[in-house]
Amino acid sequence: MKKNPVFVLAPDSFKGSLTAKEVCQAMENGIKRILPQAVCIQVPMADGGEGTVQSLVDATKGQLITLQVTGPLGDPVTAQYGLLGDGETAVIEMASASGLHLVDEKTKNPLTATTYGTGQLVKDCLNRGIRKIVLGLGGSATNDGGAGFAQALGVRFSDKEGHALPSGGAALSRLHHIDTSGLDKRLKNIRIEIASDVTNPLCGENGASHVFGPQKGATPSMVNILDVALNHYASLLKQHTGKDIASIPGAGAAGGLGAAVLAFTQAELKRGVDIVIEYTHLREAVSQADYVLTGEGGIDFQTLFGKTPYGVARIAKAENKPVIAIAGFIGTDIESLYDTFDAIFGIVPGVMTMAEAMQTASRNVERTVEQIVRLLEKDSGS
Amino acid sequence: MKKNPVFVLAPDSFKGSLTAKEVCQAMENGIKRILPQAVCIQVPMADGGEGTVQSLVDATKGQLITLQVTGPLGDPVTAQYGLLGDGETAVIEMASASGLHLVDEKTKNPLTATTYGTGQLVKDCLNRGIRKIVLGLGGSATNDGGAGFAQALGVRFSDKEGHALPSGGAALSRLHHIDTSGLDKRLKNIRIEIASDVTNPLCGENGASHVFGPQKGATPSMVNILDVALNHYASLLKQHTGKDIASIPGAGAAGGLGAAVLAFTQAELKRGVDIVIEYTHLREAVSQADYVLTGEGGIDFQTLFGKTPYGVARIAKAENKPVIAIAGFIGTDIESLYDTFDAIFGIVPGVMTMAEAMQTASRNVERTVEQIVRLLEKDSGS
Repeated sequence: MKKNPVFVLAPDSFKGSLTAKEVCQAMENGIKRILPQAVCIQVPMADGGEGTVQSLVDATKGQLITLQVTGPLGDPVTAQYGLLGDGETAVIEMASASGLHLVDEKTKNPLTATTYGTGQLVKDCLNRGIRKIVLGLGGSATNDGGAGFAQALGVRFSDKEGHALPSGGAALSRLHHIDTSGLDKRLKNIRIEIASDVTNPLCGENGASHVFGPQKGATPSMVNILDVALNHYASLLKQHTGKDIASIPGAGAAGGLGAAVLAFTQAELKRGVDIVIEYTHLREAVSQADYVLTGEGGIDFQTLFGKTPYGVARIAKAENKPVIAIAGFIGTDIESLYDTFDAIFGIVPGVMTMAEAMQTASRNVERTVEQIVRLLEKDSGS
Repeated sequence: MKKNPVFVLAPDSFKGSLTAKEVCQAMENGIKRILPQAVCIQVPMADGGEGTVQSLVDATKGQLITLQVTGPLGDPVTAQYGLLGDGETAVIEMASASGLHLVDEKTKNPLTATTYGTGQLVKDCLNRGIRKIVLGLGGSATNDGGAGFAQALGVRFSDKEGHALPSGGAALSRLHHIDTSGLDKRLKNIRIEIASDVTNPLCGENGASHVFGPQKGATPSMVNILDVALNHYASLLKQHTGKDIASIPGAGAAGGLGAAVLAFTQAELKRGVDIVIEYTHLREAVSQADYVLTGEGGIDFQTLFGKTPYGVARIAKAENKPVIAIAGFIGTDIESLYDTFDAIFGIVPGVMTMAEAMQTASRNVERTVEQIVRLLEKDSGS
């Protein structure tokens, strides 16, 4: 080990206990206990889902914007999005305005829930002169094909009689006309990157309603109502845009919000972690590293499918740097991870409850990273 | 790291889940997954308590002897002791014949419980021509000052009327005469090493009855009865031997068995782990090692007080070898351990129940050691 080794600390959040930034800090504390002279570059990560705004704001020294918008049920909710340190990029998690955490068992209703608030967040970005938006899909309470999102930005959905459709996916079965004459013109000058790891199309068996509807409260008959409505919506979208947007993998993300963003804005779909890697300039940091540390609440064989630590590890491997992961829980069947990860350590110190593990997470990250550094330092020192 | 590194594997058992030998094997499996060419020297360890017989038999390729003796309650029990690979040393855990695990909540009675069976095990060793006995104290159901042990070897304890005393510590209050004329003569030619980490004297506030009586079922009044009886016993022992044996630190171990062994045999007290280190030839193994791995079910600040991993780590440090510990549970306040241990890793992969942790212990040891080796190998390879 070099005298002043450089550690790049690029964990995801440990959901329910630590933000990615807090994990970075605990990692740094563990390193500094053994190597006070080590250089630690903190790059809090995320995968495009929950925690993405916080991590990108932390990583770029940006700021959070708070505003009131229309929630999924039509009531006002307080939502946040991030302005990155570059001053021209915004990061929005759709869940902040239209998420499942804003409804409860009693109130959730995927038939009428709307993404209107997410559209309002984008509108606020337009008002601020933002040039680029990272839009994280996931955790939605909605199944409206993004119709509410489009409405907030000036699209008019009307029925046969010319009446504007009410909120929600179910009403789309009565959609007769899509009018984009009122669509905010400023959207032409803005690029939206959709961060999503979901590859589902808008409709059908693998579509938004069938796959994600039940977790939002849709009964089997509601699933059918919604899928039929979105199918009808898809055919009118195709008619209007000339493109088969509904079939694009990812169009079904966030209750079909993906489809509307693709239809009405200059947008492209990307893997969440790839967007985060880009905006945090992770690759540049890793190129300077002697060691890369990453981690997440849980690591298992699914980690290969777009999870943050895998994205980080791939960058590290491309730069030929050792990469070590820590996790609150290590699942089984992790053999396939060793092609990419050099080592994977669990952090819990023994048998304890989930509540205890959550409470002691910071200390456990710190202690585990300390041991890793002890080992690295010992071996090359002996 | 060398091409064919030598690992010395010297863990204690993980109580309730793995014997020390099983921990060794899981460690070796983890190492061999990464370094098939590594040399692994398995030295299953113990601290003189539970598991010492198994570990020393495993470490020296010895054998187990099974026989029926008198249990703590007077009923016959099946006990085991070990014959080491050298063919002339026996290892006895007193608990095998006279242990707390042989009684239950209803039957336990420290007033009458006897160490007679432990004496019978020693007698069996005499019959086999054994030259040396390691006698592990600890886990006893008894509080008889080792009177039963002495009786089994031919000592006669009688009351004023010349009647032999019945079993147990309480009866010692009526002790009038100690007759060693029947004591097995062969004891003169045998050396006994008492393995005990307990430093309590026989009587008084820090004595066997007060400190260990309650966990054997003694009520406060029973504690007083027993302490008075052992005090009387101590004064007659002093009269008989000319030595104040009751005051020797460790005389109070195993309900005072320590006192009787010291009084009636050629015995010396040693720290359990030091005896195990000696008989396993750990130091010779460590001198050939590139890395030393140790471990125990739990590691915390008390590990410094005679626990196995600490004994192993001190040997490793004396030989200037890196020593890494693993544990099923890492306690708090382990700062003081880093003077001796290079690193300490927990093995549980996340939140789980004790039963799950016990069931998956072998796999968890293997996976954790694999990660350690990955790190050691990676660092020097990069």
